[in-house]
Amino acid sequence: MIIVMKYGASEAQIDAVVRKIHQSGLKEHLSRGAELTIIGVIGDEERLDPSRFAILPGVDRVNRVAKQYKIVSRSTHPDGTTIKVRGIEIGGEQVQIIAGPYAAESAQQMDLSADLLAAASCRLMRCGAFYSEPAPQKGREALAWLKDAAARHQLPVVAELPDVRMLDAFMEYDIEMIQIGERNMQNLDLLREIGRINKPIILKRGVSATIVEWLMAAESIAAGGNHNIIFCEHGIRTFENAYRNVLDISAIAVLKQETHLPVMVDPSDACGKAWMVPALAQAAIAAGADGVLLDVHPCPAEARYAADQALSLAALMQLMAGLKPLVMALGRSL
Amino acid sequence: MIIVMKYGASEAQIDAVVRKIHQSGLKEHLSRGAELTIIGVIGDEERLDPSRFAILPGVDRVNRVAKQYKIVSRSTHPDGTTIKVRGIEIGGEQVQIIAGPYAAESAQQMDLSADLLAAASCRLMRCGAFYSEPAPQKGREALAWLKDAAARHQLPVVAELPDVRMLDAFMEYDIEMIQIGERNMQNLDLLREIGRINKPIILKRGVSATIVEWLMAAESIAAGGNHNIIFCEHGIRTFENAYRNVLDISAIAVLKQETHLPVMVDPSDACGKAWMVPALAQAAIAAGADGVLLDVHPCPAEARYAADQALSLAALMQLMAGLKPLVMALGRSL
Amino acid sequence: MIIVMKYGASEAQIDAVVRKIHQSGLKEHLSRGAELTIIGVIGDEERLDPSRFAILPGVDRVNRVAKQYKIVSRSTHPDGTTIKVRGIEIGGEQVQIIAGPYAAESAQQMDLSADLLAAASCRLMRCGAFYSEPAPQKGREALAWLKDAAARHQLPVVAELPDVRMLDAFMEYDIEMIQIGERNMQNLDLLREIGRINKPIILKRGVSATIVEWLMAAESIAAGGNHNIIFCEHGIRTFENAYRNVLDISAIAVLKQETHLPVMVDPSDACGKAWMVPALAQAAIAAGADGVLLDVHPCPAEARYAADQALSLAALMQLMAGLKPLVMALGRSL
Amino acid sequence: MIIVMKYGASEAQIDAVVRKIHQSGLKEHLSRGAELTIIGVIGDEERLDPSRFAILPGVDRVNRVAKQYKIVSRSTHPDGTTIKVRGIEIGGEQVQIIAGPYAAESAQQMDLSADLLAAASCRLMRCGAFYSEPAPQKGREALAWLKDAAARHQLPVVAELPDVRMLDAFMEYDIEMIQIGERNMQNLDLLREIGRINKPIILKRGVSATIVEWLMAAESIAAGGNHNIIFCEHGIRTFENAYRNVLDISAIAVLKQETHLPVMVDPSDACGKAWMVPALAQAAIAAGADGVLLDVHPCPAEARYAADQALSLAALMQLMAGLKPLVMALGRSL
Repeated sequence: MIIVMKYGASEAQIDAVVRKIHQSGLKEHLSRGAELTIIGVIGDEERLDPSRFAILPGVDRVNRVAKQYKIVSRSTHPDGTTIKVRGIEIGGEQVQIIAGPYAAESAQQMDLSADLLAAASCRLMRCGAFYSEPAPQKGREALAWLKDAAARHQLPVVAELPDVRMLDAFMEYDIEMIQIGERNMQNLDLLREIGRINKPIILKRGVSATIVEWLMAAESIAAGGNHNIIFCEHGIRTFENAYRNVLDISAIAVLKQETHLPVMVDPSDACGKAWMVPALAQAAIAAGADGVLLDVHPCPAEARYAADQALSLAALMQLMAGLKPLVMALGRSL
Repeated sequence: MIIVMKYGASEAQIDAVVRKIHQSGLKEHLSRGAELTIIGVIGDEERLDPSRFAILPGVDRVNRVAKQYKIVSRSTHPDGTTIKVRGIEIGGEQVQIIAGPYAAESAQQMDLSADLLAAASCRLMRCGAFYSEPAPQKGREALAWLKDAAARHQLPVVAELPDVRMLDAFMEYDIEMIQIGERNMQNLDLLREIGRINKPIILKRGVSATIVEWLMAAESIAAGGNHNIIFCEHGIRTFENAYRNVLDISAIAVLKQETHLPVMVDPSDACGKAWMVPALAQAAIAAGADGVLLDVHPCPAEARYAADQALSLAALMQLMAGLKPLVMALGRSL
Repeated sequence: MIIVMKYGASEAQIDAVVRKIHQSGLKEHLSRGAELTIIGVIGDEERLDPSRFAILPGVDRVNRVAKQYKIVSRSTHPDGTTIKVRGIEIGGEQVQIIAGPYAAESAQQMDLSADLLAAASCRLMRCGAFYSEPAPQKGREALAWLKDAAARHQLPVVAELPDVRMLDAFMEYDIEMIQIGERNMQNLDLLREIGRINKPIILKRGVSATIVEWLMAAESIAAGGNHNIIFCEHGIRTFENAYRNVLDISAIAVLKQETHLPVMVDPSDACGKAWMVPALAQAAIAAGADGVLLDVHPCPAEARYAADQALSLAALMQLMAGLKPLVMALGRSL
Repeated sequence: MIIVMKYGASEAQIDAVVRKIHQSGLKEHLSRGAELTIIGVIGDEERLDPSRFAILPGVDRVNRVAKQYKIVSRSTHPDGTTIKVRGIEIGGEQVQIIAGPYAAESAQQMDLSADLLAAASCRLMRCGAFYSEPAPQKGREALAWLKDAAARHQLPVVAELPDVRMLDAFMEYDIEMIQIGERNMQNLDLLREIGRINKPIILKRGVSATIVEWLMAAESIAAGGNHNIIFCEHGIRTFENAYRNVLDISAIAVLKQETHLPVMVDPSDACGKAWMVPALAQAAIAAGADGVLLDVHPCPAEARYAADQALSLAALMQLMAGLKPLVMALGRSL
């Protein structure tokens, strides 16, 4: 931790800072420049809250130096991690396309969706959201639809866990992967709970979360013992309103350097417009993403929610056909 | 709802849009300009999801015209609403200063905090967060500390409900007002639950929520029957990093026009720096806020969390002394 | 133009709006719903400033319906436009890599840069900025260095015009393409001047400009007669600070739909980190960009400005090698 | 400057960084922690460009410690500076209301505007923009209108200098204060030129400029010798679109701590809505601003530009009446 004193800070103010460092059981390292005095704190800075130093008289600012994520950091785990879901690898040489409807509407819609995925050679099925179905019973029903539909084509499934109270149902129905939605990225209770299970987690980025906050959310999961975490970029909120959120393609490059865990991208939720999805999916994979999550619907015009972001079967097949040579050009497979 | 067709949209495309409007049991209103065709939808547009029209061929964009919040809207309730908590009015002529520690640390810290509020003539006590105390038992203990401390000075209390599972405890301890934190502003499950009780709610704005989204979150609470809602501006996230979030002072003016409900501001959480709080509190009240929420601590330098945003007793008393003439100049009382 | 009246607007207020429409020589189209009255304005809405209606009593808001860009719009020019610079096509089947140093430092640096581009098979040379060289004489000298260096390899050049006063020098030295930097995107004086010449313009997006504002800036150039405009995405400013700006990959898809003009991307300036450039360049091209602008330097560690965003010869050659199969997979050439 | 090495950086990489520090004529200060090595650079860090170190192998990041603004910094000039314009003080005990039309339309409009200001007891007249009048001759005419109108009531004037080519006209017409608009905040050529004259400058903040960038823009002016600089907050661009820009009230508090120079606020341009201006003007002054700039027009509904942000005479007088007790409550005068 680096404590920068104000221009003209007094000796007494510097002494008070040093005393507080000693009280915390750590050592200081004083550097007096012509204009500024800087105090480095040596030792386990995890134990210190910068705000307790920032408040002292004469202190200008306090910056952490060490990164606060360790388990998920690539610095302690230089090789990339591959996560397996019933034999399917995420984060390996093969790029994964996980597709499915935005919301569960009926058993038939789910069956048709699964047929559509199988026709397009997707290997995993997702269902984005249950939150439009408030009653717990409805949530269970939707999980059953999802599992039954996917089972007909041997597809492992991903579903979004909206609330910690539904975790039991997710375990009971053996949902293979659990998605944490962007609104829950910093729901510490939820992160703690899923840190205790051993299912792979897809952790979506909050629309106003920095990459560091996202890494720390993953660290909160990993701290519980579950290291099977996949990051999923979902778009961030900016001043631009030509689409829902701006897909932060640069985050893929930053994550690939900062963490050993796989990185996926959800272009459908990011932009909210089906016609933009192919361009964004291609960009995501070209930037190094390990796969994409896509909204599809057997009949987009009749979708109950977010109709304009769902791909039809024809659109999905065209997208897959476009991805094939691209993925090969990148030295990967689809 | 206004549907703007693309330049050069065909008659068949226009017909398809009109047919879909009819299928929804509504009527259309066609306006053909030299360049553009615009289709107005007449009837209860609540029943329509714009995305189902946006996806149709030839459609450029779809805009809602009617606002989606009704109960909380000033248009249906022109006079301002005053909310009473044990005889203390929020939204009336009197400006309220609600203060308390950021997090519950101990019974003694809470007692000293309550003494401090009484000394500074605050009428309501708050405790920001329990989320740093994960175990439910710890949460209950903190509620007991808060209630006992406040009771010694007859202060009604406000506490943040972090999770729907703690609502029972909040009812049992008779927490007079319930705060919904910024991360829960769009937690629909939680909004639904607190819509069914009759305690006043302080609804904080999410750091990346638009004012319209915030109004709709309040509408979700109100739809359940609980109309005792107080908006609390909490800062929004931008590119500026000289402080935590930018306090959106303009939101106060917009809310005062759009809703009849009271509006408060939390300058402490917004900026994260105790030294900035007095300037922001003054600005908030001068802009028309009905009160402010403040972080205080009996000994800021020893606060376990967010030490640099807590006001000491001396700082709080100086702030109150500065607010007094300001509030009077605005024709209100403190 | 659509004028939405406030809930409960009086007949007199509606009449006043209609009267003002008539005074402007246009016609109104009244739609009275159960709750809201909406007034459409028919005719050439270019002639109307919405703010003059927004100010009238009883008006809630005023929205334009027609887009304000025409010449650059794809709706009036469905085929894509290809711009030629000494036989090299931008916006065609071939993807262009325009590279060069961030700033002109010396004749030798420029010569080495040109050699480097030739070695890597780039077809155009750029020099980002002269603004670090305040004196006009310095600016001229830099243009001479650039042209001489490029001439040795028959490379057409692009240079950034920082100020309208330097336009004469750009013409005199026959700079083949003129770049308008992000800070000048809305400098109307400058846009007007370059609208009168016939050289291709690379128009960078301002870091806080919406896509619509960017299209309107291009329209301002085109209105003067110069339609040879190439959009260049340059990153937008957000709350994230893991890199300089977020590269808005979605803007490429939006522009490809909204305008017939070519679209390029500058990943170097967007992210400010050389190590991220290859991933972003690949993403940009996969999303449909017609080319990229890259910062290179004969010796990045010795670059006088922005050293950490410059690619070395080795890095550029590796990037080109990676782009080759990617571009082919997309059905284009390099 | 603090250079943080990557986890696991080699001795050779550390040596290379140290060697480069020595080559720059400075000294290093090495701190080896259990996990991280940090290298402090001692001496005049102004001479170093962090990017030249960031690019070295093994370097994780480079942070400046010293602030890059000196002349405008309060640390070297603890007392506040008062700037006088023909006997009127800005930055002193008296709060200044500078008002005038958004754009110059005619001599008569200017005369009526000046009459309006005199009636409302404003002491300075402003005219926001000439950029809608492209021809230089038009610009000169507008300056003449402004000066003549203001002279009838002995009001010093402020006008926005849109382009360095008009500086001569500003000097010739003896414009008492020069405003630099938000789009020119980082126009280094312009900043350099006005640094050489001795007229007070109102420096508006760019809509996406950080406070540090703004302070550095002021430093660029001051470096030329002109220290008469007044900061003017103008709103920043965010995701919220209920108004034009969010007025960053917190920036006032930060500037009051960081610089000794006066701070004003332009609520009209920030929000773009006349009805919001009084609330924002009150908030700005309550937060510590030394004054506000306001858009007024003799007949807002007929204003040629930005009609919905102009205050009428009645609205201005009501605003002044509201400010009077507020300003007194703050211990200042109007």
